[in-house]
Formats: sequence, C-alpha cells, structure tokens
Amino acid sequence: MSVRDLGEFQLIERITKHLKSSKSVLQGVGDDAALVATPALKGLLLTCDAMVENVHFLKVADPKDIGYKLMASNISDIAAMGGIPGYALVTVVLPPSTELNWVDSLYHGLSECADEYGVSIVGGDTSSGAEIVLTVALVGMVEPERALLRSGARVGDIIMLTGPLGASQVGLCIHTGRLSLTGELADQALQQHFRPKPRVAEGRLIAALGGHAANDISDGLASELWEIAESSGVSMCIERHLLPIHPAAQTVAIDSDDAVRYALTSGEEYELVFTLAKEVAQANKAALESFHVIGEVLEGRGAYICEGEEKIALGRGHVHFAAAAAVHQAEARRTR
Amino acid sequence: MSVRDLGEFQLIERITKHLKSSKSVLQGVGDDAALVATPALKGLLLTCDAMVENVHFLKVADPKDIGYKLMASNISDIAAMGGIPGYALVTVVLPPSTELNWVDSLYHGLSECADEYGVSIVGGDTSSGAEIVLTVALVGMVEPERALLRSGARVGDIIMLTGPLGASQVGLCIHTGRLSLTGELADQALQQHFRPKPRVAEGRLIAALGGHAANDISDGLASELWEIAESSGVSMCIERHLLPIHPAAQTVAIDSDDAVRYALTSGEEYELVFTLAKEVAQANKAALESFHVIGEVLEGRGAYICEGEEKIALGRGHVHFAAAAAVHQAEARRTR
Repeated sequence: MSVRDLGEFQLIERITKHLKSSKSVLQGVGDDAALVATPALKGLLLTCDAMVENVHFLKVADPKDIGYKLMASNISDIAAMGGIPGYALVTVVLPPSTELNWVDSLYHGLSECADEYGVSIVGGDTSSGAEIVLTVALVGMVEPERALLRSGARVGDIIMLTGPLGASQVGLCIHTGRLSLTGELADQALQQHFRPKPRVAEGRLIAALGGHAANDISDGLASELWEIAESSGVSMCIERHLLPIHPAAQTVAIDSDDAVRYALTSGEEYELVFTLAKEVAQANKAALESFHVIGEVLEGRGAYICEGEEKIALGRGHVHFAAAAAVHQAEARRTR
Repeated sequence: MSVRDLGEFQLIERITKHLKSSKSVLQGVGDDAALVATPALKGLLLTCDAMVENVHFLKVADPKDIGYKLMASNISDIAAMGGIPGYALVTVVLPPSTELNWVDSLYHGLSECADEYGVSIVGGDTSSGAEIVLTVALVGMVEPERALLRSGARVGDIIMLTGPLGASQVGLCIHTGRLSLTGELADQALQQHFRPKPRVAEGRLIAALGGHAANDISDGLASELWEIAESSGVSMCIERHLLPIHPAAQTVAIDSDDAVRYALTSGEEYELVFTLAKEVAQANKAALESFHVIGEVLEGRGAYICEGEEKIALGRGHVHFAAAAAVHQAEARRTR
C-alpha cells in the first residue's frame, strides 16, 4: 500500500497517531500552528536540517535510521549551542508511490530519537513531490549568556573534543561496500554512522563551565575548526599527536596519515569540538576527564594541524552544488 | 550563472546578506542554531509550510511572488492562532542548474513579506535536489489563554469572516488562462492570489476580544468550517445569503451557484473564519464592523450551508497524494 492510496489527511493521522508529547505542549498536531508553553530559559534556539533522497540517503537505506539521524542532526545543532532541545516540526515531501511501510518506519525512527532526547514533534507539513525531501525544524532553549557561539573562541583557550573521530566515515564506507571490516569495530562504526548520539549532556556541561565556542562535527573536524577560527577571528591550532582517532578508523587506515585524514574529514560525527579558558579546564579536570585536549587557540587566522615544526592549513569541508571552483577546499576533503 | 557555479557556502552568503533582523535576534545565520531572546508572551506558536515545484507553483511563476506567498502562508497560520509572528527558518532544495537570479528573487520575496510583518529570517538549510522544494518554519507568540484553537467553537457562537472570498481562485484561473478577465477586478484577484495579506492584526483583535476558534482559509471555507466543526464537536451552519463574495468572483461566476462555489472552495484566501460569543459580538460592534457575520454554531456535527429550508453538507477540501478513494470529498472541491 502506498501513500497515494491513503490521501493526505489519513496519512497525517497515521503518522501522528503514536507521537508522544511533553506536558508543555498545549496544542500539538491538528491546528494552524502548534502551541507550547514558552520555555523558562531566556534564549530560544532555532535550527533546521533537510535530507534529500540520493543526496543525503539512498531509498534503500533503512527508513528508521534515516528518521533517527535526521532528528539527531537537529538535536546535535542544539547541543553544539549548549542548549536543551524541545519541539520539532517535520516536513515530508513524498512521491505518491512511496510505500506506507517506509513512511511508518521513518516516523518510528524520528520518534525514537525525539523520545530519547525529550523532544516533542508538534507539527509539520506533507506534500507530494518527485523525490523524497525531509525537513526537521527544531526549537530549543538556552541561557543566552551561556550559549556556545562559533564566534566565542579567545586567544589562549584550549581546544577540546568530546570523543574520538573517524568512525562515521568508516561506517559509511562499510555500508557502501568500500571497506569490508566486520566484527565489533565494524558494528561500532555502523552504529556511529546510522545511530549517532547527539552530545546534549556534554553541551550543557560545557555551557555550564563557561565554555567559549563549540561546533558539532557535521562536515569534518577540519571544516569545523576553520569555521570557529573564521567567526572568532583567531587561529585554531591542533596537535597531530593529540588527535583522538576511533579504533575502527585506526584499524582500516592504511597508514598514520590516513588515520589522521579520517579524524579530520569524517563528518556527521556528532562529537563537539569546543574551546574554553585554560584556567577553567584546569579547575574542572574531573568534570572534563572523558574529553580530549587537542590544541590551542592562537592569534592569527585559519585552522592548522601541527606536528613538530610542520604546520598544515586546514580548509572548509563538504559542499552541495559543488562545481567546486569557488569554494574553499580542504586538503583533506571529506568523501561522501 | 547557476547555483552550481557558486557552491553552497557562497550561496548562503549571497542569500543571507540582505536579511534584516530585529533586536531580539542575538545570533542569526551562521552558527549551529540561531539564538533569539525568548518572547515575553507565555505561549509559543510553531508552524511550517512546504512548497514544491509543479505541485504548489510552476518554475515559470515569478520567484518573488513564490517567496512572498510562502512566507505569507506561514504568517497566516500564526494569525489564525491569534498570535504575533517572530522568527523564520528557510530551507531550499534546488537543482544545481537553478539560476542565481531565480534564487535572488525568491529571497527578495521572502524578505519583503517577512519585513512587512516584523519577521526575522534567522537560519535555514540548503541542499541540491532534483526539483525545487521550499520550506519555511515559523515561530510566533501568543497569550496561551487567548490562542484561537480549532477546537474552541461553542454552541451559540456566531461565525464571522474577516473579508469576502473567491478572489484567489479567480486570480489563479486568470493566471492559468482559464479565465480572461482584465481590468481593476482582475488586478485585485491576481494580487489576492500572488500577494496575499495575512490577517495578523485581525487575528490579534479577535484574540483580544475573546474569540473562541479560528482558521485561515487555506483549503476553502467549506473545508475550514468542517475542520472547526470536527475539532469542536459542533455543527457550523452558514447562511448562503450572508456569504461575502468578492466582486471579481461575482463577475466571472456564470450564475449565483457558481459564485457561491467560488466563495466556498477558493483556497489560499488568507481571510480568517472565526467564532465568538453573540454577546461579545454585540458588545464590540464597532471593532468588528468591517467583518461579516455568516452563520451560527449549532449542536450536532459537520458543516452546512443553509438557504431557507435547504441545508447542504460541506466537506473537506484539497488533498495531496489524491487517489481520492479514502479521503473526505468536498461537494465543492477546490480545483487547483
């Protein structure tokens, strides 16, 4: 049975039937707009992410994973601001031939992730279209003075990462058949790629400690460092030997350069890269002990990876529409 | 020059360069999420609307109008809740061959409407795709106790309209060549179709007066009445002779039945249909004088149009995905 057989109103009824809402949702799906209690925190966070068939996912991928990841990518943006995710709107454009089972699984995945992070899906829109386009808009909240802006890095800050990198790209390569890893590490890599865990608790901790700047690793560490450097008017310098590389990437890498390439360019990693004052890091060693110091914020511009005397510039990552000519190219550009 | 020649980051820079923001926007485009000051009103309104090429618009239509209308349709949803629109996220999926001029004009239209209604565009997402898909998510605010819910209609309420109906459908028919009207009325109809004015001030007034329920006319009056009746558990009965019909629809209608059909089925009208207690209407005649009483809320279920003893049931309107089998069919179904 396909979407065509059901019609729009019955489709909406079907996909919204099992949605859970927090008590703060005064009116969810089914009116001109959703009505929720205005959050207590003084800052509102707004973000959205779209996923397009054949660009961000293949129709053959598990729709439950697609839904989970779409919600997770939005939640991760809120985490990267030091905030708490709250309310989501989901827009689905579907070819009329789309199987209802596919749509059911998509919403299963969306809800699973939303429920895990206390997000209420409160509305959305549906339309027919030639290919599948999924959009989630997410509203969160934060104390404005604690928000982790990209522009907040200061000279003298240390640069930290919440976890090791590289597994998501390995997972993608396993999925697409470019790597043939199996076993525990492969499972971890696939999990990291298909079921990433946004670092909301970590973001809240960093914000509470007075962190200065943060990004989630959407387009690869190199790109995220570059963006913070650009926005903050500083130079972001990381030490090659300090870079935490996931064991799965260590295992599949052909040499240590390749392992570093995984860590710099693997996107959709959902770890946070952040900066904070050295004294603060020193004073909160216990709270930060599971995180990794990877470098330091210096005067200047741009992002760099250093090894002894050698210093290599890092550029910007993955772009859509890429005829590539005019965009900043990372030396180690992400392949996806 | 096309989107392909520019690349994603430069495209984002180009389309966001001219956006205006209110003072409450603490961090707009350019971070993981936008940060705005949490509104003072205790209720947050969330809505979104998608427009898909060849479903909601044709590529040959003026992209400025497409942008204007997309923003307007979201603002109208906030108006229909009695709220104030505030912050928008814009997601654009574009084929790489899309002309930059087209995108510039689209954003020109989006911004023009946003500026008119005090909305700040604070973020969004871009992606390549096979066809154009545009999504706006909009956050607004309202006093929760005043919000105009679809479920709020009460037996004994009178039903009112903020303005005459039918012009939008006439405008569409002129545009597509199905009608050949020219002159002042044609201009009004085209204006109504391409540059609709969301009734934010009217919605605020209705909310302030203690209105019970409201819908904007997205899918035709018949459909909106049906929805209020269904949500409120009441019967919505309007009088045929009270229906305000736009002069453009009066002029092109082949007879009075046809004129009524325009008024019942013309969608994207942006007028509000609302209910409020008779005593309140009586006590606020001056404030409500530009609006039209069209009927009364009765016990029972469903929506009806009455003429003397005759009573015709009204059904639900336009649906996407329509193989039509399983969906409620309006007698007077909207043609678009």
